[in-house]
Amino acid sequence: MTASEQYRMERDSLGEILVPSTAYYGAQTQRAKENFQISGMRLPRSFIRAQGIIKASAAKTNMELGLLTKSIGEAIIEAAEEVIQGKWDSHFVVDVYQAGAGTSQNMNANEIIAHRASELLDGTLESHRVHPNDHVNMAQSTNDTFHTALHIAAIENMNKRLLPAISQLQQELQRKSVEFMPIMKSGRTHLHDAIPIRMGQEFSGYAETIQAALNQIEKAADSLYEIGLGGNAIGTKMDLHPNYIPKVIKEVSNRTNLAFREPANMFEFMQNMGAPIRTMMTLKELSIHLIKITSDLRLLASGPRTGLAEITLPSVQPGSTIMPGKVNPAILEMTHMVACQVIGYEAAIATAGIAGQLEINVMMPLIAHTLLESIELLANAVQTLVTKCISGIQANEVICKHWMEESLSLVTAISPIMGYDRAAQIGKEADDKDITIRDVLAQQGLLTPEIEKALDPNSMV
Amino acid sequence: MTASEQYRMERDSLGEILVPSTAYYGAQTQRAKENFQISGMRLPRSFIRAQGIIKASAAKTNMELGLLTKSIGEAIIEAAEEVIQGKWDSHFVVDVYQAGAGTSQNMNANEIIAHRASELLDGTLESHRVHPNDHVNMAQSTNDTFHTALHIAAIENMNKRLLPAISQLQQELQRKSVEFMPIMKSGRTHLHDAIPIRMGQEFSGYAETIQAALNQIEKAADSLYEIGLGGNAIGTKMDLHPNYIPKVIKEVSNRTNLAFREPANMFEFMQNMGAPIRTMMTLKELSIHLIKITSDLRLLASGPRTGLAEITLPSVQPGSTIMPGKVNPAILEMTHMVACQVIGYEAAIATAGIAGQLEINVMMPLIAHTLLESIELLANAVQTLVTKCISGIQANEVICKHWMEESLSLVTAISPIMGYDRAAQIGKEADDKDITIRDVLAQQGLLTPEIEKALDPNSMV
Amino acid sequence: MTASEQYRMERDSLGEILVPSTAYYGAQTQRAKENFQISGMRLPRSFIRAQGIIKASAAKTNMELGLLTKSIGEAIIEAAEEVIQGKWDSHFVVDVYQAGAGTSQNMNANEIIAHRASELLDGTLESHRVHPNDHVNMAQSTNDTFHTALHIAAIENMNKRLLPAISQLQQELQRKSVEFMPIMKSGRTHLHDAIPIRMGQEFSGYAETIQAALNQIEKAADSLYEIGLGGNAIGTKMDLHPNYIPKVIKEVSNRTNLAFREPANMFEFMQNMGAPIRTMMTLKELSIHLIKITSDLRLLASGPRTGLAEITLPSVQPGSTIMPGKVNPAILEMTHMVACQVIGYEAAIATAGIAGQLEINVMMPLIAHTLLESIELLANAVQTLVTKCISGIQANEVICKHWMEESLSLVTAISPIMGYDRAAQIGKEADDKDITIRDVLAQQGLLTPEIEKALDPNSMV
Amino acid sequence: MTASEQYRMERDSLGEILVPSTAYYGAQTQRAKENFQISGMRLPRSFIRAQGIIKASAAKTNMELGLLTKSIGEAIIEAAEEVIQGKWDSHFVVDVYQAGAGTSQNMNANEIIAHRASELLDGTLESHRVHPNDHVNMAQSTNDTFHTALHIAAIENMNKRLLPAISQLQQELQRKSVEFMPIMKSGRTHLHDAIPIRMGQEFSGYAETIQAALNQIEKAADSLYEIGLGGNAIGTKMDLHPNYIPKVIKEVSNRTNLAFREPANMFEFMQNMGAPIRTMMTLKELSIHLIKITSDLRLLASGPRTGLAEITLPSVQPGSTIMPGKVNPAILEMTHMVACQVIGYEAAIATAGIAGQLEINVMMPLIAHTLLESIELLANAVQTLVTKCISGIQANEVICKHWMEESLSLVTAISPIMGYDRAAQIGKEADDKDITIRDVLAQQGLLTPEIEKALDPNSMV
Repeated sequence: MTASEQYRMERDSLGEILVPSTAYYGAQTQRAKENFQISGMRLPRSFIRAQGIIKASAAKTNMELGLLTKSIGEAIIEAAEEVIQGKWDSHFVVDVYQAGAGTSQNMNANEIIAHRASELLDGTLESHRVHPNDHVNMAQSTNDTFHTALHIAAIENMNKRLLPAISQLQQELQRKSVEFMPIMKSGRTHLHDAIPIRMGQEFSGYAETIQAALNQIEKAADSLYEIGLGGNAIGTKMDLHPNYIPKVIKEVSNRTNLAFREPANMFEFMQNMGAPIRTMMTLKELSIHLIKITSDLRLLASGPRTGLAEITLPSVQPGSTIMPGKVNPAILEMTHMVACQVIGYEAAIATAGIAGQLEINVMMPLIAHTLLESIELLANAVQTLVTKCISGIQANEVICKHWMEESLSLVTAISPIMGYDRAAQIGKEADDKDITIRDVLAQQGLLTPEIEKALDPNSMV
Repeated sequence: MTASEQYRMERDSLGEILVPSTAYYGAQTQRAKENFQISGMRLPRSFIRAQGIIKASAAKTNMELGLLTKSIGEAIIEAAEEVIQGKWDSHFVVDVYQAGAGTSQNMNANEIIAHRASELLDGTLESHRVHPNDHVNMAQSTNDTFHTALHIAAIENMNKRLLPAISQLQQELQRKSVEFMPIMKSGRTHLHDAIPIRMGQEFSGYAETIQAALNQIEKAADSLYEIGLGGNAIGTKMDLHPNYIPKVIKEVSNRTNLAFREPANMFEFMQNMGAPIRTMMTLKELSIHLIKITSDLRLLASGPRTGLAEITLPSVQPGSTIMPGKVNPAILEMTHMVACQVIGYEAAIATAGIAGQLEINVMMPLIAHTLLESIELLANAVQTLVTKCISGIQANEVICKHWMEESLSLVTAISPIMGYDRAAQIGKEADDKDITIRDVLAQQGLLTPEIEKALDPNSMV
Repeated sequence: MTASEQYRMERDSLGEILVPSTAYYGAQTQRAKENFQISGMRLPRSFIRAQGIIKASAAKTNMELGLLTKSIGEAIIEAAEEVIQGKWDSHFVVDVYQAGAGTSQNMNANEIIAHRASELLDGTLESHRVHPNDHVNMAQSTNDTFHTALHIAAIENMNKRLLPAISQLQQELQRKSVEFMPIMKSGRTHLHDAIPIRMGQEFSGYAETIQAALNQIEKAADSLYEIGLGGNAIGTKMDLHPNYIPKVIKEVSNRTNLAFREPANMFEFMQNMGAPIRTMMTLKELSIHLIKITSDLRLLASGPRTGLAEITLPSVQPGSTIMPGKVNPAILEMTHMVACQVIGYEAAIATAGIAGQLEINVMMPLIAHTLLESIELLANAVQTLVTKCISGIQANEVICKHWMEESLSLVTAISPIMGYDRAAQIGKEADDKDITIRDVLAQQGLLTPEIEKALDPNSMV
Repeated sequence: MTASEQYRMERDSLGEILVPSTAYYGAQTQRAKENFQISGMRLPRSFIRAQGIIKASAAKTNMELGLLTKSIGEAIIEAAEEVIQGKWDSHFVVDVYQAGAGTSQNMNANEIIAHRASELLDGTLESHRVHPNDHVNMAQSTNDTFHTALHIAAIENMNKRLLPAISQLQQELQRKSVEFMPIMKSGRTHLHDAIPIRMGQEFSGYAETIQAALNQIEKAADSLYEIGLGGNAIGTKMDLHPNYIPKVIKEVSNRTNLAFREPANMFEFMQNMGAPIRTMMTLKELSIHLIKITSDLRLLASGPRTGLAEITLPSVQPGSTIMPGKVNPAILEMTHMVACQVIGYEAAIATAGIAGQLEINVMMPLIAHTLLESIELLANAVQTLVTKCISGIQANEVICKHWMEESLSLVTAISPIMGYDRAAQIGKEADDKDITIRDVLAQQGLLTPEIEKALDPNSMV
C-alpha cells in the first residue's frame, strides 16, 4: 500500500477488510485476491461475459416475478450489461486457481454489479443500496451460475471461433484434394512401399477425418446447451419461484441467440461436469487427428534434398540460426504443440472430473479455464494452419512419379494374374538386383499386354 | 520339440519353416509365433469370430461374382463358419503384440481356413488346394479386414454385453431413486453442511449421469458401423470388382444382424482409427462417472461407526484378515479399479492413435486388444455392480435425519426472510455455541410461524 | 498501423519486412510475431533470463578465444546483462506456440542483443554493426541454446522457489505431527472403522510422503545440470573451438552459482528432452500426493455438523453465495486444482516427448512453457497451502475420541486373545445391537484385566 | 455343479459356503471367486511367489519369537515353500479385479497354506488344525503383506528380467554405434536437411538415451526395497513383538538375496503406493524413449524404394497379405505398441494413485497387476527388439553418402567464412537451381582451398 493509494473499508461474514477505493469489487473478492496468488491468470473475457448475461437475466426474471423492485432490478441490469460489454474486466481480479466452486468468481461479479448498480442509483458505489447476495445473486448460487457460465462461454466460443475454423480446415483440405487429384504417387504403409495412390485421395482422407472430428464435437457439445439456472446450491430449487427457470433460460437464450434448455435432471447437472468433460474429449480427438495430419505433411514435405519432398510448404520464416537458408515446417509444428497442450488439458479435466463429491464437483474453475483455453488455442491454431500452411501447399509431381515408379509394391498389380507366391518372387528379384518391377518382368519376357495394363498406375487408383 | 512331437514343413515368401503337424495354421503364423513372445495374450473370441464372419462373407461374395470356384468357395465358407463358432480358437496363436497392421493375425485366419478348407475338399490339410492369400484373402488386405474385424467385434460386444449392462445400472439407480425419495437428508457441498435433499434426488442424479454417458457411447459407437471392406491395402480398391463392396457389407450385416455401411471416405478409414478412438473416449467418460458415483456410495456408506453411515451396502465377503467383522465396499472398489484400468486403456489408445503415418496406423492390434478388453471389463464390472451392490443398498433413515437436523446450512432457509448477512450471524452463533440453528432461533425468540415454516425440511426439497 | 506509429525496414533471408521503430527486435522476430497469434502468452521471465545468461557467457567465451573483437564482445555482454536483468522483457514478443525448435525465440534474443549492442557502440540501434547470427549467436544454435535455457530456467526456479516450498510443507506437516501426537482417533481403511491411531502418526505419514516426493524430484532434476552448449545444431560441435565447451559452461555456472556440466553424450542431449520429461514426471508424483493429502484433510475436516469433523481448517473466506455462514476448504481445493493442472501438463510433455525425430525434438517451446509453468504453479500453491491452511489446522480431540470409542474395529485388540473367529462374532453382536465392543464384552462378563488392558487404546498405538 | 463334482462345507464370519473338495482354498476365497467374475486374469506367478516368501518368513519369525508352535510353524513354512515353488498356483483363483486392499488375495494364500499345512500335519486338509488368520496370517494384515508382496515381485522381476534386457539394449546400441561410426550421412532436424553426422554418432545418442532411462528406473526402484511388514493394518504395529520387524525383513532378504529394509515411516508406507507409482513413471519414460528410437529406425529404414533407406532391418516375416514381397518393421512396431500400453498402464496407476484415502489406498490389486504386467511386457519386448532387430541392422553407406552430398545444409560449413547472410543466399540459389551447394560455389568460382576444406564432411563431424 503506497502512500498515494486510497482504501475503503468493506465487510463480509468474516469481518472487515480494506479494499482499494477505486475497486468496484468488495470484501469477498479482496479476500480471494489475497488468498490466491497462484498463476496470475484470470478467467477469460468469454466467461466474464457469460457471468454478466446470467446476472442480467436473473435480475430481469426476478423483476418480472415481483421479487426485485424496478429501480434495483434495472440498475442491476444496466451494470450487468456493462459487465457483458467488458467495461469492468479489470475489476475481475480472482486467480483461476481459487476455491473449488468458483464462489469468489461469482462474488466478484456480484460485488462489482452491486457497487456499480448502487452508484447508478445513488451516485456513489459506497451506498450499498444494492446487496451482492440478496439482490444481485437472488435466486442463484455459485453452483448453478458458475457451471452455467462455463456452458455459455464454451458454446459461444465454439460457435463463433472454433467450429468455423474447423470447417474452414475441412474445406481447404477438400479443395486441396481436388487440386491434387491428378497427382499420382506411391502409397506407403509401415513407411514402406505400397501401391499407387492419388495425392488428392490422401487429402480427401484428411478432409473426412476433420469432418468426422467436427461431427463428434458437435454431438458432444449439444449437452452444453443444458443450463441448470435455478437449481441453486444442490439442485433442489429451494425457495424458487416456479416460473423462474423457464423465464431465466428464455432470457439467456434471447441474449445469446442460442437455444439453451433446462437439464434433463437438475441433480445430475449439479453433481457433475459431464458436458465439459465430454466436449473436452472431442477436442482431444481433434488434436489426435491434427497431430497425425500435420505429421504426415511434415513427412511428405521432408527434404528439400534429404527427404520425400512430395510437397512443398509455404515459407513463413527462416528456420535456423546456424544453418543458413533452412526453412522449417513452422506452422505444422506449432499446431502439433497446441494439440499436445490440448491433450494435456483433457487429462487435467478428466482428473478433475473424477474429483466430484456428492452434490458438487469442486474443480470447476480449473475445468472452465482449461476448456475455454483449449477452444481458444485450437481456434487460433487451426485458422493459422489453414491460412499460413494448408492453402499454400504445392505438390511436386515429378518427385511423386519417381517414387511411384520405383516402388516394389507395383508387383501387387500382377498378383491376381500370377498368384501371390510368384509375384513375391518377382518382387524379391527386383529388390536383390536393385531394379524396378517392370525391369524384372521385361528381363523375363513377361511384359504381356495384360501385364502392361495391370502395371499402368491409372488402373490401380 | 520333444521326441513325440511331429512337424511338417511349410513355406512362405521368406522360405521354409517347420510347423506342428496338428496345427491348422501355416508358415507365416509360425514365424509370428516365434517372433512375438511378449504377453502370452491373444486377441479375444469376439475378434476371431469377426475374422470368420469377414472371411465367410468375402468368399460368398467372390463366389457370386464368379471370382472363386464353387468348390473352393464353399469349402472356405464352411471352414470360416467353424472359425465363427470357435472350433479353431486354439489355433489362433499370435500374440496381441505383433506387427502393426495385424498381418500375422490375418494370416493366422487365412492359413487356418485354407488348411481346413483343403482338408474338407481333399481329406488332408496338406493338399494346399486352397491358398491362404489367393483364395481366402481374395479381394482383401490386412488393412481393411483387421480394422473391420475390430469394428464388428466391438459393436457386437457393446450391443450384447456392455450397453445392456449400462442400461441395467441406469434402471437400478432409477429404481433406488424412487425407493429413496422419502428419505430426507443433508446435502453436502465441499464435504460441508449444505441444505436438505432427498436421497432419492441424489440417486436420480446418478441415474441421469449414467443415461448421459450411455447416450454419448451410442453416439460415438455409431461410427463403428462404418466398415471399409474392399478398401484393401490403402483405400484405392485396386483390382476390386465394382459390386464387391455392397455385396460383402450386406453379407456381413446379414450374418451379424447389424446395419453396417461403407465409410463416408475409404481413405479416411484406412488412415485412421477414428471410430475406436472416439468410442474409447466415451468409455473413459463412463469410467469417470463410475468413479464419482462409487466414491460417493463409499462415502455415504462410510462407518459403520466412524463415518456418515447414511446407507448400508450388502455384505459380500469379510473385509479384513486382521480386523474381525470388518466388511468393506468390495464391489465398489472393484468397479473403481476397472474404471482406472479403462482410463489407462484410453491413454494407450490415444497414444497409439497419434502414431498413424500416411496410409495406415500400425498400432491396430493394440487398439483392438485394449478396446475389446475395456468393453469386456466394463460389462462385467457394471453387471456385478448392479446385482451385488446397488440393488441391495439400504438407507439409514434415522441417521440421515440426524445429520439433516444438525446441519448449519438450515440457516439458508431463513436467508430470504432475514437477509444473507443476518442469517450468516445466526449460523455463526450456532457454530460457536455448538447448538442447532433452530436452537439459536428459539433462544432469540425468532421462531415465528413464518420461520417455522421455512425451517420445515419438506419445504426445502 | 496507426498514423502515429513509426516503422523501420529490416531484412532477413526471406527478404524485407517492417518493424516498429522502437522495437529492439528485428525481421525474424517480426515474422514470428505475425505468424504465431495463438495464445498471447510468452515464455516467462526465468527463460528470458536464462537466454541472457547464455548469450553473455558465449560472448565472453568467444572473446577469450579470440573469435570476437573486444568491442563487439563487450557490447554483447552488456546488452545480454540487461536482458538478464529484465530490461528488454517487453521486446520478447514471440508466442509460446511458435516453430518447434524455438528458433524465433532464439532470434528474438539475438536480435534484441544485436540491436542494443549496436546502439551501445554507435548510438543507434540501426547501425547493424553487431550481427544477430554471426556475432550474438556465434558458436551456438537454437537447438543447443533453447534446450540449455530451459534447463537453466527450470533448475533455477526449482532451487529458488519450488524445493524450498516443498521443504516448508514437509516441515510444517512434521511440526503438526508432533503437535497432534497426543490426539487419539480411529483409523479408517476403505472408509470403514479400523483400529486406533494417533493423529500425529497420520501427519507423520504425510510429512514423509512429501519428503519422498522431494527426494525423487531432486534425483530427476539432477539431469537438468547437463547443458549441451557447444553441441550446436545436432551435437557434432561443427566449427567449434575445442576450448569453447568447458569455458562457456564454467561461465554459465559462475553466473548462476550452479554446477552445470557437459552432457554424458552430446547427441543424446540434442535428440531428446529427457531431463525435462523425467523432472516433469516427478512433479506429477508430487501432484498425486498433494491430491491424496488435501483430499484426506477435507475428509477429516468435513462438517462442521454433517461430517467427520476431526480437524478444523482456518477460515479464509466465506464459502457460499447462497448458504450464509458456510466456510469451505478453499486452499485445499485450490491445491487440488493446481495438481490436476500439473498432471495435465505432464501429459502434454509426455505427448510432446514422443514427437522427437532424429536429431531434434521440435516440441521444445511447449515443453519449456509447461515445465516452467508447473514449477511456478506448484511453488505458489504449496507455499499458500502451508501458510494459509496447514499451519492453522486444529484437532478436535473430543470428536476424535468419540469416533475411536465407537469403532467396531476395537475388537481387533482381543483377536490375539480369543481368536479371529470368536472376535468376529463379538464384533457382529456389537453391530447388531448397536452398542460398543466394550459393552458386548461387559454384557458377556468378559472384561477381564487382560481384556481391559488389550482394549486400552494406548496399548494399540 | 455337475453330479460328479464333490464339495465340502467351509465357513467364515459371514457363514457357511460350499467349496470344491479338491480345492486347498477355503470360504473367503470361494466368496471372492463368486463375487469377482470380471477379467478372468489372476495376479502373476511372481506375485504368488512373493506371497509365499512372506508367509514362510512370517512363520519362521513367529516361531523364533515363541508365538507359533514348532509343529504348526514348520508345517506353514513347508506349505509356503510349495507356494513359492508354484505347486499351488492353480488354487489361486481370485480375479485381478477384487476388493481394494487385496484381502481376498491374501486370504487365498492364507487358506491354501492353512489347508496344506493341516494336511501335512494330519493327513487331511479338513482338520483345520492350522488357522488361516490366527496362524498363517499371524502378525500380518493384508495391508502390509499385499503391498510388500508387490514390492518383492516388482523388484525381483526388474532385477531378473527387465534391467538386464535394458542393459542389453544399451550395449547393442553402443556396439552398433561403433560399427556405424565410419558411415557419414546427413543429419536432419525438423525432417529437413541438416549438417553431416556419423550414423555411429546417432546411435551413440540412442545408447545414452537408454542408459539415462535405466539410471532413472534404478533410482526410482530403490524405494521398492522398503517393505512395511509388521506395520499391520494401518502402520501402528499393534500387538507386534518388538523383534518381529527386523527378523522378518532379514528372513525375506535371505530368501530373495535382496537387501530389503524397513520404511522410513511406516504410516507413509500404508497410506500410499509411492514406490510403485514412481517406478511406473520411469517405465513410462523408457517407453517414451522406445517410441522415439523405434520411430527413428523406421524412418531411417523407410523404403526400400520410396523412403530414406539409410538402414536395412532384418526380415522376420512377410509384411502384407496383399502386397507380395513386402517386409515391414514388425519388431519395431511391436515395441511401439508395448510402449503405448505401458504409457496407458502408467495412466491407470496414476489414476489409482490419487484414490488413496486416509490409512490405505484401495487400488492395490490393480496397481500390482499393471506394474508387474508392464515389467513383463517391457522385458520381453526389449529383449526381442535387441535380438530380432537391433543386432541385425545394416547401414546402406552409398545411400547415406548420396543424401549427405545433396543436403542444402552443407552451406552451414561456409557460414563462418562468408557470414550467415551470404551463405543463405548461396543456399537459396542451390535450391532454386536444384543443384548442390558445391555446384553453386564452383559456378561462382568460390571453391578456394579454404572452402574446399570447410566442405569436406570429415571436417564437420
